[in-house]
Amino acid sequence: MEATREWAEQQDSEDPLSLFRKEFALPDGVIQLNGNSLGPLPRAVPDALDRVVRHQWGEHLIRGWTEDGWWDAPVRVGDRIGRLIGAGPGRTVVGESTSVQLFNALTAAARLCPDRTVLVSDAANFPTDRYLAGSVARMLGLRLVEARVDELDRVLERHRGEVGPVLCGAVDFRTGELWDVPRTTAAVHAAGGVAVWDLSHAAGAVPLDVDTAGVDLAVGCGYKYLSGGPGAPAYLYAAARHHDALDLPLTGWHGHVRPFDMADEFVPAPGIARARTGTPHVLSLLALEAALEPLETAGVTAVRHKSLRLGDYAIRLVAGLIGTDGASAPDREPQVVTPAAHHRRGNHIALRCPGAPAVSAALMERGVVTDARPPDLLRLCLNGLYVSYAEVFDTVAALRDVLREEVRTADTGLPAGRAGEVAG
Amino acid sequence: MEATREWAEQQDSEDPLSLFRKEFALPDGVIQLNGNSLGPLPRAVPDALDRVVRHQWGEHLIRGWTEDGWWDAPVRVGDRIGRLIGAGPGRTVVGESTSVQLFNALTAAARLCPDRTVLVSDAANFPTDRYLAGSVARMLGLRLVEARVDELDRVLERHRGEVGPVLCGAVDFRTGELWDVPRTTAAVHAAGGVAVWDLSHAAGAVPLDVDTAGVDLAVGCGYKYLSGGPGAPAYLYAAARHHDALDLPLTGWHGHVRPFDMADEFVPAPGIARARTGTPHVLSLLALEAALEPLETAGVTAVRHKSLRLGDYAIRLVAGLIGTDGASAPDREPQVVTPAAHHRRGNHIALRCPGAPAVSAALMERGVVTDARPPDLLRLCLNGLYVSYAEVFDTVAALRDVLREEVRTADTGLPAGRAGEVAG
Repeated sequence: MEATREWAEQQDSEDPLSLFRKEFALPDGVIQLNGNSLGPLPRAVPDALDRVVRHQWGEHLIRGWTEDGWWDAPVRVGDRIGRLIGAGPGRTVVGESTSVQLFNALTAAARLCPDRTVLVSDAANFPTDRYLAGSVARMLGLRLVEARVDELDRVLERHRGEVGPVLCGAVDFRTGELWDVPRTTAAVHAAGGVAVWDLSHAAGAVPLDVDTAGVDLAVGCGYKYLSGGPGAPAYLYAAARHHDALDLPLTGWHGHVRPFDMADEFVPAPGIARARTGTPHVLSLLALEAALEPLETAGVTAVRHKSLRLGDYAIRLVAGLIGTDGASAPDREPQVVTPAAHHRRGNHIALRCPGAPAVSAALMERGVVTDARPPDLLRLCLNGLYVSYAEVFDTVAALRDVLREEVRTADTGLPAGRAGEVAG
Repeated sequence: MEATREWAEQQDSEDPLSLFRKEFALPDGVIQLNGNSLGPLPRAVPDALDRVVRHQWGEHLIRGWTEDGWWDAPVRVGDRIGRLIGAGPGRTVVGESTSVQLFNALTAAARLCPDRTVLVSDAANFPTDRYLAGSVARMLGLRLVEARVDELDRVLERHRGEVGPVLCGAVDFRTGELWDVPRTTAAVHAAGGVAVWDLSHAAGAVPLDVDTAGVDLAVGCGYKYLSGGPGAPAYLYAAARHHDALDLPLTGWHGHVRPFDMADEFVPAPGIARARTGTPHVLSLLALEAALEPLETAGVTAVRHKSLRLGDYAIRLVAGLIGTDGASAPDREPQVVTPAAHHRRGNHIALRCPGAPAVSAALMERGVVTDARPPDLLRLCLNGLYVSYAEVFDTVAALRDVLREEVRTADTGLPAGRAGEVAG
């Protein structure tokens, strides 16, 4: 039943989020399953950005900073992103790249516990996180200890009394595994450490509650589930209890208590505004702001609910593909590595699939945008905000065709599959 | 003769750069003399950015990174800015804010001379430079010594054998004074230091030759004379001789030698690409790229030639205003603090003018966009690329009217001036 396109179409016709699909400029004939790398273009963005450029910059010139709210944008957009991650107002600020925010957050975290000597960094984290953790550890003379999140309890025990900043990714960028942010944060706190989370692969896709979870600091990017566009600015969250002591290294003038005094000494602004750095990238920042509305209107909880259903569906279809279709040789068959359990699954579904980069390229030729991550993972981002059940069906069908094509190319003599039915 | 609008109009009619004015979307009835804060909108930008958004992001999605050249943009745009500052290709990279690039450059500079203990910072530099110099000094355990550029020889002598990084602004953001970059750089080198320049108020306005001058590192912003838009990304230049040893703290994954290997260890890319940080702000970055063409076509030398003539003209008109017009009381009269000598003058003309913020606001009401800097400086940015002689005339006329109005408001009983003639 599920293995027919009709079933998928029926789900779409009953999907309360199907209305949001038209809020995105999805190109015809393309299935965009790469929103964990670059979210698609929200329809509101081009006109909003054009107004910023022609009207605000072009006509208002420097007055844009006040009249058009450019000055407040880092904290205003920060508050909107804050709502998506469970942060109260005045705890999130937008600007720079995730790498830069990681540097800022980790250094500030270390300064919150100056007696600690070890910086723990998630060994499975996105490379930039690991590189920046190494850089901060070096600059501050801390010992860098890398460990996977599921090894963290052991590491905290082994380095009892030494652990300071602990940087983890909320969702494993390769496998799509979702970590327990509240539990891990509590464990870090119990060990006297400071929990810094990279929410890039979670924010906007998974309900988060950084305030309630007691998260100390967090960063994330604006271009994945927030659909802010290529290189959209990142954000930094800091728990309100840390604001007065938040001692950030990137002391740009926008973070000064009275920036236009042009004073000799840096005196940080009260609250999260001290995490502002230099002049914000207004065009990229206001594109991000314009991008947020569909997600805000739909709500992360509703999007998550549908995304999990899409993921369940994809997992079942892929399982059927393997189980019933002769095309998959044992060493080539795609194996779902993302946890099936909802509380342990982020948004994207990762398939272990030898030759994943070639498979992803072949899918791209068929109009299915995925990506591959070393060594052999194919990632499918099933974002409930704009992905349909029919697209999941078509994707697994295309995947089957690609795998068969590869097998045929390898001269196994197996027949090509029928299009439009995955596990017939 | 010069004091008539006809004379100014005659200059404009003979001005070879007058053609470039139409390349900027200057609002009607507005004289934009604030390009040292925010350059006006180049006409090519809105359409270029719209194509990036709708066509590249919207239709190409993730393929934009390769097909549309997003990945190469930080070094490609860097090379274009490099040409404007006298840097050969492969020595300049664009990204983040000036504050962040200052942090990156100063830390790398200190690591080029690890035996040195003093970081010297231009005491008259823009606040963000001073704040970041303080932050880097603190993180690296260096002693911060602040000194004006004209005191530098004495400081280098006093701290002989100790001075490492020396950060100076090429043009004083308040007074518009231009420093001798080659001479100062040579003095820093003679003292065993590393010269780091902030070119924000010079690049695109003053011919620079960072390669020949032996500059070690430089940073600058993209939104002043480069007209890249509000918060356009900044750039970092590093002399080729330092590339192999360039040890930057912001080790984002885009600076990795093989970023898509997603390797465990950060191994910097060869050349200037190691100064890439995280994912670049593509929208802001490509707006900056589209903005550069008029300046490139006109050439910095030609723009500088006209800007100096505009500045000479403004200085003479202001002098006439004071000399012959009864409106200026001695304690209120605008006094030009920018050096008249061309080799010591940057682009903008700064007038000491009590109540400068109110004067700037009154000029804004008359359609003349200037700005004020504490305590009492009014800044006029006379960018030869789009400012006309007639606008200089009208500006000084408006200034005279504003000052008379102020004096009248103060009930001195002086008559209002005639509009349209400055020093009749």
